[in-house]
Amino acid sequence: MQKIYVIKIGGNVIDDPLKLKQFLLDFSKIDRPKVLAHGGGKVASDLAKRLGISQAMVNGRRITDAETLKIAVMVYAGLLNKQIVAQLQALNVNAIGLCGADLNVLSARKREVKEIDYGFAGDLNLSSVNASVIETLLSSGVVPVFSAITHDGNGQLLNTNADTIACFIAKSLVEKFEVKLHYCFEKKGVLLNSEDDSSVIPKLNRSLYRRLSSEGVISKGMLPKLDGAFEALMNGVAEVKISCSDAILNVIDDENEGTRLVG
Amino acid sequence: MQKIYVIKIGGNVIDDPLKLKQFLLDFSKIDRPKVLAHGGGKVASDLAKRLGISQAMVNGRRITDAETLKIAVMVYAGLLNKQIVAQLQALNVNAIGLCGADLNVLSARKREVKEIDYGFAGDLNLSSVNASVIETLLSSGVVPVFSAITHDGNGQLLNTNADTIACFIAKSLVEKFEVKLHYCFEKKGVLLNSEDDSSVIPKLNRSLYRRLSSEGVISKGMLPKLDGAFEALMNGVAEVKISCSDAILNVIDDENEGTRLVG
Repeated sequence: MQKIYVIKIGGNVIDDPLKLKQFLLDFSKIDRPKVLAHGGGKVASDLAKRLGISQAMVNGRRITDAETLKIAVMVYAGLLNKQIVAQLQALNVNAIGLCGADLNVLSARKREVKEIDYGFAGDLNLSSVNASVIETLLSSGVVPVFSAITHDGNGQLLNTNADTIACFIAKSLVEKFEVKLHYCFEKKGVLLNSEDDSSVIPKLNRSLYRRLSSEGVISKGMLPKLDGAFEALMNGVAEVKISCSDAILNVIDDENEGTRLVG
Repeated sequence: MQKIYVIKIGGNVIDDPLKLKQFLLDFSKIDRPKVLAHGGGKVASDLAKRLGISQAMVNGRRITDAETLKIAVMVYAGLLNKQIVAQLQALNVNAIGLCGADLNVLSARKREVKEIDYGFAGDLNLSSVNASVIETLLSSGVVPVFSAITHDGNGQLLNTNADTIACFIAKSLVEKFEVKLHYCFEKKGVLLNSEDDSSVIPKLNRSLYRRLSSEGVISKGMLPKLDGAFEALMNGVAEVKISCSDAILNVIDDENEGTRLVG
Protein backbone atom coordinates (compact mmCIF):
# COMPACT_ATOMS: atom_id res chain seq x y z
CA MET A 1 0.00 0.00 0.00
CA GLN A 2 1.15 3.50 -0.78
CA LYS A 3 2.11 5.67 2.18
CA ILE A 4 0.44 9.00 2.75
CA TYR A 5 1.19 11.71 5.28
CA VAL A 6 -1.58 13.72 6.90
CA ILE A 7 0.14 16.56 8.72
CA LYS A 8 -1.46 19.10 10.99
CA ILE A 9 0.22 22.36 11.93
CA GLY A 10 -0.96 24.62 14.69
CA GLY A 11 -0.63 28.16 15.94
CA ASN A 12 3.05 28.00 16.85
CA VAL A 13 3.97 27.51 13.16
CA ILE A 14 1.21 29.70 11.72
CA ASP A 15 2.09 32.68 13.93
CA ASP A 16 5.78 32.73 13.01
CA PRO A 17 6.37 33.60 9.32
CA LEU A 18 9.93 32.25 9.35
CA LYS A 19 8.92 28.99 10.99
CA LEU A 20 6.04 28.61 8.56
CA LYS A 21 8.33 29.25 5.60
CA GLN A 22 10.81 26.64 6.83
CA PHE A 23 8.05 24.15 7.56
CA LEU A 24 6.52 24.58 4.09
CA LEU A 25 9.95 24.15 2.49
CA ASP A 26 10.43 20.89 4.40
CA PHE A 27 6.85 19.83 3.64
CA SER A 28 7.42 20.48 -0.06
CA LYS A 29 10.25 17.94 -0.01
CA ILE A 30 8.15 15.08 1.33
CA ASP A 31 8.21 12.82 -1.66
CA ARG A 32 4.85 11.08 -1.12
CA PRO A 33 1.16 11.88 -1.30
CA LYS A 34 0.39 14.33 1.50
CA VAL A 35 -2.36 16.38 3.04
CA LEU A 36 -1.95 19.46 5.21
CA ALA A 37 -4.42 20.69 7.81
CA HIS A 38 -3.89 23.92 9.64
CA GLY A 39 -5.27 25.64 12.68
CA GLY A 40 -5.58 29.31 13.28
CA GLY A 41 -3.08 30.72 15.70
CA LYS A 42 -3.32 34.22 17.05
CA VAL A 43 -4.42 35.97 13.86
CA ALA A 44 -8.11 35.30 14.48
CA SER A 45 -8.05 36.37 18.13
CA ASP A 46 -6.01 39.47 17.23
CA LEU A 47 -8.54 40.41 14.55
CA ALA A 48 -11.44 39.85 16.95
CA LYS A 49 -9.73 42.09 19.47
CA ARG A 50 -9.14 44.84 16.92
CA LEU A 51 -12.82 44.65 15.95
CA GLY A 52 -13.91 44.72 19.58
CA ILE A 53 -15.55 41.30 19.34
CA SER A 54 -15.23 39.47 22.63
CA GLN A 55 -14.29 35.80 22.50
CA ALA A 56 -16.27 33.73 24.96
CA MET A 57 -14.56 30.55 26.12
CA VAL A 58 -16.17 27.70 28.07
CA ASN A 59 -13.97 24.88 29.39
CA GLY A 60 -11.16 25.94 27.07
CA ARG A 61 -13.40 25.83 24.01
CA ARG A 62 -14.26 28.92 22.04
CA ILE A 63 -17.91 29.79 21.58
CA THR A 64 -18.43 30.47 17.90
CA ASP A 65 -21.10 33.17 17.67
CA ALA A 66 -22.02 34.63 14.28
CA GLU A 67 -19.31 37.33 14.36
CA THR A 68 -16.65 34.91 15.56
CA LEU A 69 -17.57 32.52 12.76
CA LYS A 70 -17.10 35.29 10.18
CA ILE A 71 -13.65 35.99 11.58
CA ALA A 72 -12.77 32.29 11.56
CA VAL A 73 -13.86 31.94 7.93
CA MET A 74 -11.96 35.07 6.90
CA VAL A 75 -8.77 34.14 8.70
CA TYR A 76 -8.67 30.33 8.43
CA ALA A 77 -10.28 29.69 5.03
CA GLY A 78 -9.16 33.04 3.61
CA LEU A 79 -5.93 34.66 4.73
CA LEU A 80 -3.99 31.74 6.25
CA ASN A 81 -5.17 29.09 3.83
CA LYS A 82 -4.42 31.15 0.73
CA GLN A 83 -1.05 32.37 2.04
CA ILE A 84 -0.04 28.75 2.65
CA VAL A 85 -1.27 27.67 -0.79
CA ALA A 86 0.55 30.54 -2.53
CA GLN A 87 3.78 29.68 -0.70
CA LEU A 88 3.43 25.99 -1.60
CA GLN A 89 2.82 26.85 -5.25
CA ALA A 90 6.04 28.88 -5.17
CA LEU A 91 7.74 25.67 -3.99
CA ASN A 92 6.24 23.75 -6.94
CA VAL A 93 3.69 21.98 -4.77
CA ASN A 94 0.37 21.94 -6.60
CA ALA A 95 -1.67 22.83 -3.54
CA ILE A 96 -5.36 23.53 -3.31
CA GLY A 97 -6.89 25.28 -0.33
CA LEU A 98 -10.14 23.78 0.90
CA CYS A 99 -12.82 24.40 3.43
CA GLY A 100 -15.41 21.72 3.99
CA ALA A 101 -17.90 23.30 1.59
CA ASP A 102 -15.49 23.11 -1.36
CA LEU A 103 -16.45 20.01 -3.34
CA ASN A 104 -18.49 19.12 -0.24
CA VAL A 105 -15.33 17.53 1.06
CA LEU A 106 -16.08 17.86 4.79
CA SER A 107 -19.58 18.13 6.12
CA ALA A 108 -20.27 18.59 9.80
CA ARG A 109 -23.19 18.86 12.17
CA LYS A 110 -23.75 21.97 14.24
CA ARG A 111 -23.03 20.97 17.82
CA GLU A 112 -26.25 20.32 19.69
CA VAL A 113 -27.14 22.82 22.38
CA LYS A 114 -27.14 21.09 25.75
CA GLU A 115 -25.93 22.98 28.84
CA ILE A 116 -23.70 25.08 26.63
CA ASP A 117 -24.46 26.63 23.26
CA TYR A 118 -21.18 26.41 21.34
CA GLY A 119 -22.69 28.38 18.48
CA PHE A 120 -21.47 27.59 14.97
CA ALA A 121 -19.19 24.75 15.99
CA GLY A 122 -19.27 21.77 13.64
CA ASP A 123 -18.73 18.19 14.78
CA LEU A 124 -17.56 15.50 12.40
CA ASN A 125 -18.81 11.96 12.18
CA LEU A 126 -17.94 8.84 10.22
CA SER A 127 -19.64 10.02 7.02
CA SER A 128 -18.26 13.58 7.19
CA VAL A 129 -15.26 13.10 4.94
CA ASN A 130 -15.73 12.73 1.21
CA ALA A 131 -12.68 10.51 0.83
CA SER A 132 -13.15 9.97 -2.90
CA VAL A 133 -12.74 13.72 -3.50
CA ILE A 134 -9.45 13.69 -1.59
CA GLU A 135 -8.29 10.54 -3.39
CA THR A 136 -9.08 12.07 -6.79
CA LEU A 137 -7.06 15.18 -5.95
CA LEU A 138 -4.16 13.09 -4.65
CA SER A 139 -4.16 10.89 -7.75
CA SER A 140 -3.61 14.03 -9.85
CA GLY A 141 -0.63 15.00 -7.71
CA VAL A 142 -2.58 17.73 -5.94
CA VAL A 143 -1.89 18.48 -2.28
CA PRO A 144 -5.05 19.39 -0.35
CA VAL A 145 -4.63 22.05 2.32
CA PHE A 146 -7.51 22.04 4.80
CA SER A 147 -8.58 25.00 6.86
CA ALA A 148 -10.61 24.50 10.04
CA ILE A 149 -13.92 25.43 8.40
CA THR A 150 -16.64 22.95 7.48
CA HIS A 151 -20.29 23.26 6.41
CA ASP A 152 -23.58 21.60 7.30
CA GLY A 153 -24.75 20.95 3.74
CA ASN A 154 -27.58 23.44 4.17
CA GLY A 155 -25.58 26.55 3.45
CA GLN A 156 -24.15 27.13 6.92
CA LEU A 157 -20.39 27.32 7.43
CA LEU A 158 -19.10 25.90 10.71
CA ASN A 159 -15.94 26.10 12.78
CA THR A 160 -14.26 22.73 13.36
CA ASN A 161 -11.14 21.92 15.33
CA ALA A 162 -8.18 21.33 12.99
CA ASP A 163 -6.85 18.40 15.04
CA THR A 164 -10.20 16.69 14.58
CA ILE A 165 -10.20 17.43 10.86
CA ALA A 166 -6.73 15.90 10.46
CA CYS A 167 -7.82 12.86 12.47
CA PHE A 168 -10.98 12.23 10.41
CA ILE A 169 -9.18 12.75 7.11
CA ALA A 170 -6.53 10.25 8.20
CA LYS A 171 -9.19 7.70 9.14
CA SER A 172 -11.04 8.19 5.85
CA LEU A 173 -7.98 7.28 3.79
CA VAL A 174 -7.03 3.96 5.40
CA GLU A 175 -8.69 1.82 2.76
CA LYS A 176 -6.48 3.17 -0.01
CA PHE A 177 -3.34 4.20 1.83
CA GLU A 178 -0.98 3.35 4.65
CA VAL A 179 -1.75 6.54 6.57
CA LYS A 180 0.73 8.35 8.77
CA LEU A 181 -0.88 11.07 10.85
CA HIS A 182 1.47 13.68 12.20
CA TYR A 183 0.60 16.47 14.62
CA CYS A 184 3.06 19.34 14.84
CA PHE A 185 2.90 21.51 17.92
CA GLU A 186 5.18 23.66 20.06
CA LYS A 187 6.96 20.86 21.94
CA LYS A 188 9.23 18.09 20.69
CA GLY A 189 6.63 15.52 21.65
CA VAL A 190 4.43 14.56 24.58
CA LEU A 191 6.46 15.44 27.65
CA LEU A 192 6.72 13.60 30.97
CA ASN A 193 7.60 16.92 32.57
CA SER A 194 6.11 19.95 30.86
CA GLU A 195 9.03 22.05 32.13
CA ASP A 196 11.64 19.78 30.58
CA ASP A 197 11.79 19.74 26.77
CA SER A 198 14.06 16.72 26.80
CA SER A 199 11.50 14.56 28.63
CA VAL A 200 9.80 13.43 25.42
CA ILE A 201 7.93 10.14 25.74
CA PRO A 202 9.13 8.20 22.67
CA LYS A 203 6.32 5.63 22.69
CA LEU A 204 2.93 6.22 24.22
CA ASN A 205 0.44 3.40 24.48
CA ARG A 206 -3.11 3.60 25.68
CA SER A 207 -2.50 2.35 29.21
CA LEU A 208 0.41 4.75 29.78
CA TYR A 209 -1.75 7.55 28.36
CA ARG A 210 -4.56 6.68 30.78
CA ARG A 211 -2.19 6.68 33.72
CA LEU A 212 -0.47 9.95 32.76
CA SER A 213 -3.75 11.74 32.16
CA SER A 214 -5.22 10.51 35.45
CA GLU A 215 -2.07 11.81 37.16
CA GLY A 216 -2.44 15.16 35.39
CA VAL A 217 0.91 14.78 33.59
CA ILE A 218 -0.94 15.00 30.28
CA SER A 219 -3.71 17.59 30.43
CA LYS A 220 -5.67 20.39 28.78
CA GLY A 221 -5.47 20.64 24.97
CA MET A 222 -3.43 17.45 24.71
CA LEU A 223 -6.37 15.34 25.88
CA PRO A 224 -8.73 15.78 22.90
CA LYS A 225 -5.72 15.63 20.55
CA LEU A 226 -4.59 12.32 22.00
CA ASP A 227 -8.10 10.89 22.34
CA GLY A 228 -8.59 11.52 18.63
CA ALA A 229 -5.16 10.17 17.85
CA PHE A 230 -5.74 6.87 19.66
CA GLU A 231 -9.10 6.56 17.98
CA ALA A 232 -7.36 7.03 14.62
CA LEU A 233 -4.99 4.17 15.48
CA MET A 234 -7.97 1.99 16.38
CA ASN A 235 -9.49 2.80 13.00
CA GLY A 236 -6.64 1.62 10.85
CA VAL A 237 -4.30 4.64 10.73
CA ALA A 238 -0.85 3.06 10.56
CA GLU A 239 1.03 5.57 12.67
CA VAL A 240 0.32 8.66 14.74
CA LYS A 241 3.17 10.89 15.77
CA ILE A 242 3.40 14.12 17.70
CA SER A 243 6.39 16.39 17.40
CA CYS A 244 7.32 20.00 16.83
CA SER A 245 7.35 21.36 13.29
CA ASP A 246 11.12 21.90 13.11
CA ALA A 247 13.00 19.67 10.72
CA ILE A 248 9.81 17.75 9.95
CA LEU A 249 11.58 16.06 7.08
CA ASN A 250 14.00 14.33 9.47
CA VAL A 251 11.52 13.78 12.24
CA ILE A 252 8.75 12.28 10.21
CA ASP A 253 10.26 8.83 9.71
CA ASP A 254 12.73 8.80 12.60
CA GLU A 255 11.73 6.50 15.44
CA ASN A 256 13.92 8.48 17.84
CA GLU A 257 12.15 11.79 17.35
CA GLY A 258 8.81 12.91 18.74
CA THR A 259 6.19 10.78 20.43
CA ARG A 260 4.87 7.78 18.57
CA LEU A 261 1.49 6.47 19.63
CA VAL A 262 1.14 2.71 19.74
CA GLY A 263 -2.03 0.68 20.01
CA MET B 1 -19.41 22.77 -29.37
CA GLN B 2 -20.77 22.69 -25.87
CA LYS B 3 -21.98 25.97 -24.42
CA ILE B 4 -20.55 27.32 -21.19
CA TYR B 5 -21.58 30.31 -19.13
CA VAL B 6 -19.02 32.47 -17.37
CA ILE B 7 -21.00 34.74 -15.06
CA LYS B 8 -19.67 37.60 -12.98
CA ILE B 9 -21.58 39.08 -10.08
CA GLY B 10 -20.67 42.32 -8.38
CA GLY B 11 -21.27 44.25 -5.21
CA ASN B 12 -24.98 44.86 -5.75
CA VAL B 13 -25.68 41.12 -5.49
CA ILE B 14 -22.99 40.35 -2.90
CA ASP B 15 -24.16 43.06 -0.52
CA ASP B 16 -27.79 41.94 -0.45
CA PRO B 17 -28.25 38.49 1.15
CA LEU B 18 -31.72 38.00 -0.35
CA LYS B 19 -30.59 39.01 -3.83
CA LEU B 20 -27.59 36.71 -3.55
CA LYS B 21 -29.76 33.84 -2.41
CA GLN B 22 -32.15 34.34 -5.34
CA PHE B 23 -29.28 34.70 -7.78
CA LEU B 24 -27.62 31.50 -6.57
CA LEU B 25 -30.94 29.65 -6.81
CA ASP B 26 -31.31 30.80 -10.43
CA PHE B 27 -27.65 30.06 -11.12
CA SER B 28 -28.08 26.54 -9.73
CA LYS B 29 -30.73 25.91 -12.37
CA ILE B 30 -28.54 26.74 -15.33
CA ASP B 31 -28.32 23.35 -16.90
CA ARG B 32 -24.90 23.72 -18.55
CA PRO B 33 -21.26 23.93 -17.57
CA LYS B 34 -20.77 27.21 -15.73
CA VAL B 35 -18.21 29.32 -13.93
CA LEU B 36 -18.92 32.04 -11.39
CA ALA B 37 -16.65 34.99 -10.62
CA HIS B 38 -17.45 37.40 -7.86
CA GLY B 39 -16.33 40.82 -6.75
CA GLY B 40 -16.26 42.19 -3.28
CA GLY B 41 -18.98 44.67 -2.52
CA LYS B 42 -19.01 46.75 0.59
CA VAL B 43 -17.87 44.06 3.02
CA ALA B 44 -14.18 44.74 2.42
CA SER B 45 -14.47 48.53 2.72
CA ASP B 46 -16.66 48.16 5.82
CA LEU B 47 -14.07 45.90 7.43
CA ALA B 48 -11.24 48.29 6.52
CA LYS B 49 -13.21 51.14 8.10
CA ARG B 50 -13.84 49.17 11.29
CA LEU B 51 -10.12 48.40 11.48
CA GLY B 52 -9.20 52.01 10.84
CA ILE B 53 -7.35 51.17 7.62
CA SER B 54 -7.71 53.99 5.14
CA GLN B 55 -8.45 53.04 1.54
CA ALA B 56 -6.49 55.13 -0.91
CA MET B 57 -8.07 55.48 -4.35
CA VAL B 58 -6.41 56.88 -7.48
CA ASN B 59 -8.51 57.42 -10.62
CA GLY B 60 -11.25 55.21 -9.19
CA ARG B 61 -8.83 52.38 -8.54
CA ARG B 62 -8.06 51.16 -5.08
CA ILE B 63 -4.44 51.13 -3.96
CA THR B 64 -3.77 47.71 -2.50
CA ASP B 65 -1.27 48.21 0.31
CA ALA B 66 -0.26 45.25 2.51
CA GLU B 67 -3.11 45.74 4.99
CA THR B 68 -5.69 46.24 2.24
CA LEU B 69 -4.50 43.06 0.53
CA LYS B 70 -5.00 41.09 3.73
CA ILE B 71 -8.55 42.40 3.97
CA ALA B 72 -9.21 41.56 0.32
CA VAL B 73 -7.93 38.00 0.79
CA MET B 74 -9.96 37.52 3.98
CA VAL B 75 -13.18 38.90 2.53
CA TYR B 76 -13.03 37.85 -1.14
CA ALA B 77 -11.21 34.49 -0.97
CA GLY B 78 -12.48 33.75 2.56
CA LEU B 79 -15.84 34.97 3.74
CA LEU B 80 -17.67 35.73 0.48
CA ASN B 81 -16.22 32.89 -1.55
CA LYS B 82 -16.94 30.24 1.08
CA GLN B 83 -20.42 31.58 1.83
CA ILE B 84 -21.26 31.36 -1.87
CA VAL B 85 -19.80 27.86 -2.15
CA ALA B 86 -21.70 26.65 0.94
CA GLN B 87 -24.96 28.04 -0.46
CA LEU B 88 -24.35 26.43 -3.84
CA GLN B 89 -23.61 23.08 -2.20
CA ALA B 90 -26.96 23.37 -0.39
CA LEU B 91 -28.51 23.76 -3.88
CA ASN B 92 -26.76 20.60 -5.06
CA VAL B 93 -24.22 22.48 -7.11
CA ASN B 94 -20.82 20.88 -6.61
CA ALA B 95 -18.98 24.18 -6.29
CA ILE B 96 -15.34 24.78 -5.46
CA GLY B 97 -14.07 28.14 -4.30
CA LEU B 98 -10.81 29.21 -5.87
CA CYS B 99 -8.29 31.99 -5.67
CA GLY B 100 -5.58 32.13 -8.28
CA ALA B 101 -3.08 30.27 -6.10
CA ASP B 102 -5.32 27.20 -5.79
CA LEU B 103 -4.08 24.68 -8.36
CA ASN B 104 -2.13 27.65 -9.78
CA VAL B 105 -5.27 28.40 -11.76
CA LEU B 106 -4.72 32.15 -12.18
CA SER B 107 -1.30 33.72 -12.03
CA ALA B 108 -0.82 37.45 -12.32
CA ARG B 109 1.96 39.99 -12.40
CA LYS B 110 2.23 42.69 -9.78
CA ARG B 111 1.41 45.95 -11.53
CA GLU B 112 4.57 47.83 -12.41
CA VAL B 113 5.16 51.03 -10.49
CA LYS B 114 5.09 53.98 -12.89
CA GLU B 115 3.60 57.29 -11.76
CA ILE B 116 1.36 55.43 -9.35
CA ASP B 117 2.20 52.51 -7.09
CA TYR B 118 -0.95 50.40 -7.05
CA GLY B 119 0.57 48.10 -4.45
CA PHE B 120 -0.42 44.44 -4.55
CA ALA B 121 -2.57 44.70 -7.66
CA GLY B 122 -2.19 41.80 -10.08
CA ASP B 123 -2.56 42.13 -13.84
CA LEU B 124 -3.48 39.18 -16.02
CA ASN B 125 -2.00 38.30 -19.38
CA LEU B 126 -2.59 35.68 -22.03
CA SER B 127 -0.81 32.93 -20.13
CA SER B 128 -2.40 33.75 -16.76
CA VAL B 129 -5.25 31.27 -16.90
CA ASN B 130 -4.58 27.58 -16.45
CA ALA B 131 -7.47 26.55 -18.70
CA SER B 132 -6.80 22.83 -18.41
CA VAL B 133 -7.39 23.00 -14.65
CA ILE B 134 -10.77 24.65 -15.24
CA GLU B 135 -11.64 22.17 -17.99
CA THR B 136 -10.79 19.22 -15.73
CA LEU B 137 -13.03 20.57 -12.98
CA LEU B 138 -15.86 21.22 -15.44
CA SER B 139 -15.57 17.75 -16.93
CA SER B 140 -16.21 16.31 -13.44
CA GLY B 141 -19.33 18.42 -13.10
CA VAL B 142 -17.64 20.83 -10.71
CA VAL B 143 -18.56 24.52 -10.77
CA PRO B 144 -15.55 26.78 -10.14
CA VAL B 145 -16.26 29.91 -8.12
CA PHE B 146 -13.51 32.50 -8.51
CA SER B 147 -12.71 35.20 -6.00
CA ALA B 148 -10.83 38.31 -7.07
CA ILE B 149 -7.50 37.11 -5.66
CA THR B 150 -4.59 35.87 -7.76
CA HIS B 151 -0.92 35.12 -7.04
CA ASP B 152 2.42 35.83 -8.68
CA GLY B 153 3.80 32.29 -8.53
CA ASN B 154 6.45 33.41 -6.04
CA GLY B 155 4.30 33.22 -2.95
CA GLN B 156 2.68 36.64 -3.18
CA LEU B 157 -1.10 36.95 -3.29
CA LEU B 158 -2.48 39.78 -5.42
CA ASN B 159 -5.74 41.65 -5.81
CA THR B 160 -7.23 41.42 -9.31
CA ASN B 161 -10.41 42.98 -10.67
CA ALA B 162 -13.20 40.40 -10.89
CA ASP B 163 -14.45 41.72 -14.27
CA THR B 164 -10.98 41.12 -15.66
CA ILE B 165 -10.84 37.64 -14.16
CA ALA B 166 -14.19 36.71 -15.75
CA CYS B 167 -13.02 38.11 -19.07
CA PHE B 168 -9.73 36.18 -19.11
CA ILE B 169 -11.40 32.95 -17.99
CA ALA B 170 -13.94 33.32 -20.80
CA LYS B 171 -11.18 33.86 -23.36
CA SER B 172 -9.21 30.86 -22.08
CA LEU B 173 -12.10 28.48 -22.68
CA VAL B 174 -12.94 29.30 -26.31
CA GLU B 175 -11.03 26.38 -27.78
CA LYS B 176 -13.15 23.83 -25.97
CA PHE B 177 -16.47 25.64 -25.51
CA GLU B 178 -18.90 28.08 -27.04
CA VAL B 179 -18.42 30.68 -24.32
CA LYS B 180 -21.10 33.05 -23.11
CA LEU B 181 -19.75 35.75 -20.82
CA HIS B 182 -22.33 37.46 -18.66
CA TYR B 183 -21.74 40.46 -16.41
CA CYS B 184 -24.36 41.12 -13.77
CA PHE B 185 -24.49 44.59 -12.29
CA GLU B 186 -26.99 46.98 -10.76
CA LYS B 187 -28.69 48.12 -13.98
CA LYS B 188 -30.74 46.19 -16.51
CA GLY B 189 -28.04 46.74 -19.10
CA VAL B 190 -25.93 49.53 -20.56
CA LEU B 191 -28.16 52.60 -20.44
CA LEU B 192 -28.47 55.43 -22.93
CA ASN B 193 -29.64 57.62 -20.09
CA SER B 194 -28.24 56.69 -16.68
CA GLU B 195 -31.34 58.20 -15.04
CA ASP B 196 -33.74 56.04 -17.05
CA ASP B 197 -33.69 52.33 -16.30
CA SER B 198 -35.78 51.60 -19.37
CA SER B 199 -33.18 53.06 -21.74
CA VAL B 200 -31.26 49.80 -22.08
CA ILE B 201 -29.23 49.54 -25.28
CA PRO B 202 -30.15 46.07 -26.58
CA LYS B 203 -27.19 45.74 -28.95
CA LEU B 204 -23.93 47.55 -28.54
CA ASN B 205 -21.29 47.38 -31.22
CA ARG B 206 -17.82 48.80 -31.08
CA SER B 207 -18.51 51.94 -33.09
CA LEU B 208 -21.60 52.84 -31.02
CA TYR B 209 -19.53 52.16 -27.89
CA ARG B 210 -16.80 54.51 -29.11
CA ARG B 211 -19.32 57.24 -29.83
CA LEU B 212 -21.18 56.86 -26.52
CA SER B 213 -17.98 56.83 -24.48
CA SER B 214 -16.60 59.89 -26.29
CA GLU B 215 -19.92 61.66 -25.55
CA GLY B 216 -19.65 60.62 -21.90
CA VAL B 217 -22.88 58.58 -22.04
CA ILE B 218 -20.87 55.52 -21.04
CA SER B 219 -18.29 56.36 -18.42
CA LYS B 220 -16.41 55.45 -15.26
CA GLY B 221 -16.43 51.80 -14.21
CA MET B 222 -18.27 50.75 -17.38
CA LEU B 223 -15.27 51.63 -19.55
CA PRO B 224 -12.79 48.96 -18.36
CA LYS B 225 -15.67 46.45 -18.14
CA LEU B 226 -16.68 47.11 -21.77
CA ASP B 227 -13.10 47.36 -23.06
CA GLY B 228 -12.47 43.91 -21.64
CA ALA B 229 -15.77 42.64 -22.95
CA PHE B 230 -15.09 43.76 -26.53
CA GLU B 231 -11.62 42.25 -26.31
CA ALA B 232 -13.23 38.97 -25.23
CA LEU B 233 -15.46 39.08 -28.32
CA MET B 234 -12.41 39.69 -30.50
CA ASN B 235 -10.79 36.65 -28.93
CA GLY B 236 -13.46 34.14 -29.76
CA VAL B 237 -15.96 34.51 -26.93
CA ALA B 238 -19.30 33.80 -28.58
CA GLU B 239 -21.44 36.28 -26.67
CA VAL B 240 -21.00 38.97 -24.06
CA LYS B 241 -24.02 40.25 -22.23
CA ILE B 242 -24.54 42.79 -19.50
CA SER B 243 -27.65 42.79 -17.35
CA CYS B 244 -28.76 42.92 -13.76
CA SER B 245 -28.70 39.77 -11.68
CA ASP B 246 -32.49 39.48 -11.30
CA ALA B 247 -34.12 36.56 -13.07
CA ILE B 248 -30.78 35.60 -14.62
CA LEU B 249 -32.31 32.33 -15.75
CA ASN B 250 -34.73 34.15 -18.06
CA VAL B 251 -32.38 36.91 -19.07
CA ILE B 252 -29.41 34.78 -19.96
CA ASP B 253 -30.67 33.48 -23.30
CA ASP B 254 -33.29 36.14 -24.05
CA GLU B 255 -32.28 38.50 -26.85
CA ASN B 256 -34.70 41.11 -25.53
CA GLU B 257 -33.12 41.44 -22.11
CA GLY B 258 -29.92 43.24 -21.15
CA THR B 259 -27.26 44.62 -23.46
CA ARG B 260 -25.66 42.24 -25.92
CA LEU B 261 -22.28 43.23 -27.27
CA VAL B 262 -21.71 42.57 -30.93
CA GLY B 263 -18.44 42.60 -32.81
